[in-house]
Amino acid sequence: MPSQVIQNKRDGKELTEEEIRYFIEGFTNGTVPDYQMAAFAMATCFKGMTFDETMLLTRAIVESGKTMKWSNKGGYLCDKHSTGGQGDKTSLILAPLVACCGLRIPMISGRGLGPTGGTLDKLEAIKGFKVGLTLQEVTKITDSVGLVIAAQTAEIAPADKKLYALRDVTATVSCLPLIVSSIMSKKLAENVDGLVLDVKWGSGAFMRSKEDSLELGKAMVEVGKRYGKQVVALQTNMNQPLGDTIGNSLEIQECYDILAGKTRPTDLMDLVMALGAEMLAMAGKPNDMEKHLKSGAGLKKFQEMIRAQGGDPLAPLPKATFKKAILSPKAGYVSEIECGELGYAVIALGGGRKVATDVLDYGVGFEQPKKIGDKVTKGQPLIIMHYSDPHKAAEAEKMVIKAYKISDKVTPKIKDIVTRRIV
Amino acid sequence: MPSQVIQNKRDGKELTEEEIRYFIEGFTNGTVPDYQMAAFAMATCFKGMTFDETMLLTRAIVESGKTMKWSNKGGYLCDKHSTGGQGDKTSLILAPLVACCGLRIPMISGRGLGPTGGTLDKLEAIKGFKVGLTLQEVTKITDSVGLVIAAQTAEIAPADKKLYALRDVTATVSCLPLIVSSIMSKKLAENVDGLVLDVKWGSGAFMRSKEDSLELGKAMVEVGKRYGKQVVALQTNMNQPLGDTIGNSLEIQECYDILAGKTRPTDLMDLVMALGAEMLAMAGKPNDMEKHLKSGAGLKKFQEMIRAQGGDPLAPLPKATFKKAILSPKAGYVSEIECGELGYAVIALGGGRKVATDVLDYGVGFEQPKKIGDKVTKGQPLIIMHYSDPHKAAEAEKMVIKAYKISDKVTPKIKDIVTRRIV
Repeated sequence: MPSQVIQNKRDGKELTEEEIRYFIEGFTNGTVPDYQMAAFAMATCFKGMTFDETMLLTRAIVESGKTMKWSNKGGYLCDKHSTGGQGDKTSLILAPLVACCGLRIPMISGRGLGPTGGTLDKLEAIKGFKVGLTLQEVTKITDSVGLVIAAQTAEIAPADKKLYALRDVTATVSCLPLIVSSIMSKKLAENVDGLVLDVKWGSGAFMRSKEDSLELGKAMVEVGKRYGKQVVALQTNMNQPLGDTIGNSLEIQECYDILAGKTRPTDLMDLVMALGAEMLAMAGKPNDMEKHLKSGAGLKKFQEMIRAQGGDPLAPLPKATFKKAILSPKAGYVSEIECGELGYAVIALGGGRKVATDVLDYGVGFEQPKKIGDKVTKGQPLIIMHYSDPHKAAEAEKMVIKAYKISDKVTPKIKDIVTRRIV
Repeated sequence: MPSQVIQNKRDGKELTEEEIRYFIEGFTNGTVPDYQMAAFAMATCFKGMTFDETMLLTRAIVESGKTMKWSNKGGYLCDKHSTGGQGDKTSLILAPLVACCGLRIPMISGRGLGPTGGTLDKLEAIKGFKVGLTLQEVTKITDSVGLVIAAQTAEIAPADKKLYALRDVTATVSCLPLIVSSIMSKKLAENVDGLVLDVKWGSGAFMRSKEDSLELGKAMVEVGKRYGKQVVALQTNMNQPLGDTIGNSLEIQECYDILAGKTRPTDLMDLVMALGAEMLAMAGKPNDMEKHLKSGAGLKKFQEMIRAQGGDPLAPLPKATFKKAILSPKAGYVSEIECGELGYAVIALGGGRKVATDVLDYGVGFEQPKKIGDKVTKGQPLIIMHYSDPHKAAEAEKMVIKAYKISDKVTPKIKDIVTRRIV
């Protein structure tokens, strides 16, 4: 009986494979109603799960839907997942470069969630770009182009979709085994050979503390390994925006510029290179990312993917109507950035969603953010805001001013974007 | 938002009156769906509630429905509640006797639950007896006869009815504040002046350990007091069947016989007298229970109530087809009785429900049980079984044999049915 499974979890017993499978299958087909899953999720918040249970839960969620089928011909299948941040356009540079090195990257990606931007939202700033592909289209484009970035389909891990919606309204979101199984199920349904995880900590991350993000990283790596996959996680610093832009069009333009060799933001590119190195090491392939960046092959690959997904890489991107520098109210050093607040400022400008049905203003956002350790004088720009609605801009400006802490003391810059490697 | 209330409970915060009221009102009218209540109930299992929170929860549940209205004329309004046992026909003797002393007893009672018998099931063994009364009928009969024993109506604590059904399937039954608010809300909706609680412990009780039942008793007394009621609880011994019978018709016949002065089982009558003394003390009335027992006034009052509820107290009670003595497999002393097992044996015979829709065989059950400390020889009857179906009887006999532990060592009899008084 489902209530027996709930009771066993409530009493702190380790659940068996049969119990977990029975419960998730029932939830998927409706014989385990939402209220039983809600009680189960809450009991799991209190009692946790072993790595084995988490793996079995993940597998049951994967098996609630379809998994991708791959031909043996073609490169090593690999994906990257990030727990999310601000200005995090890593995938859009990383995926083309490692695809150029011969890997196949079938990336199922997400929308913006809370203050973190979504890769799919960014791509939809490109004219004609289609993120809603069938499983068949995903495999076809991956095999022909080498990479694809698409939305979760209804066939992929339906139990996760249903469970996620329920957790959101039952105060069971911040529960490690449920977080791990939610992230990993979508990635494992891709049926890739290897997976590299970017587990962020800091003011812009889902897990603010180093300790929590380390625990999450370890759990995801353990679950992936028990599943029989190659998995590495990099714990990375998310205390300042990545690269020079935040916002959909602005970030796409930054990716074009980086892949064209026009710019190279250190923190972002350090992260891209570190994640790519892990993917290539897994695949046993030489690391030619720099070569493909310099030759322009990465840009061509990105454009090829955009075209394969119906987009026009040469079309102008949506632009905001106005630009304005937000000025530092005092002199000193940037000692702290409440990065999540910058994410919410993008939402305030209309560049992210407050509710799922909101229509995005792709052109809005921020560029040239001052970063931690930067010296500013009074009246010098902290960041440039792109906006269309002056009322929204006034609100967003307040948020930016609040997010930037300026101190009299010299603050060191963030030198190492990668905090730790978790294997 | 409901999810914020769930989160506060999950995080161990003390909920405010507003939060509790908002959540229960929402649950009653459907804006808080079952899955949110399920998550809330599970969080409450882990984090508990203060006495104040439990009182507020109880009050919100009471206020989800109607409460009884009473005229100022007439005696002190009082009720008794038992946590349930086997052979527990206490209410059926107690209520008439204290009503004879001038108290008004508007008793909302329950069906059998698990291995414990239900007062309403017992009364329905009487030809024509009606337990489903309107609130108006309940108050009318209470005022005119002095007592009534009826089922919970849809108007009384509807949130409790809904919550109880949900707890049953979400492994959240054994949660102290939810147990307390469930019991107390129904009793407090009666709007009585005083309440006496019979909190049982032992092999036949819901709370097997003395400690757990003491905790439950204390919580109920505290909540009742904070509610502004006179409340006393007696913690009582439920390690052997109460009186000489278990089963619906058999227990009604035992009540008739006791009230007619034909028999006086010590443990049962000690309990009746102890509980009655508390009720009369609360009301400030002289204790004339023995007098009304001896004069036959108690029997007349019981018959009056039966007639007021449509029953015929002189009609023969349903009888089982067969009788059989279950014999002791060895000589020695009864050292232990797994009393819950005897309750399940009654269910096996058809005298209780496995599912809510089961039709009862009122005549089946047991009588003349050997009790703890009784000496038995091999082949001497442990108990007399009344049954209609030999197949069911074979199963029930096995359960009885399993329930009785016979030891070589002399075991003392249970002398004090009341373990402790909780005020």
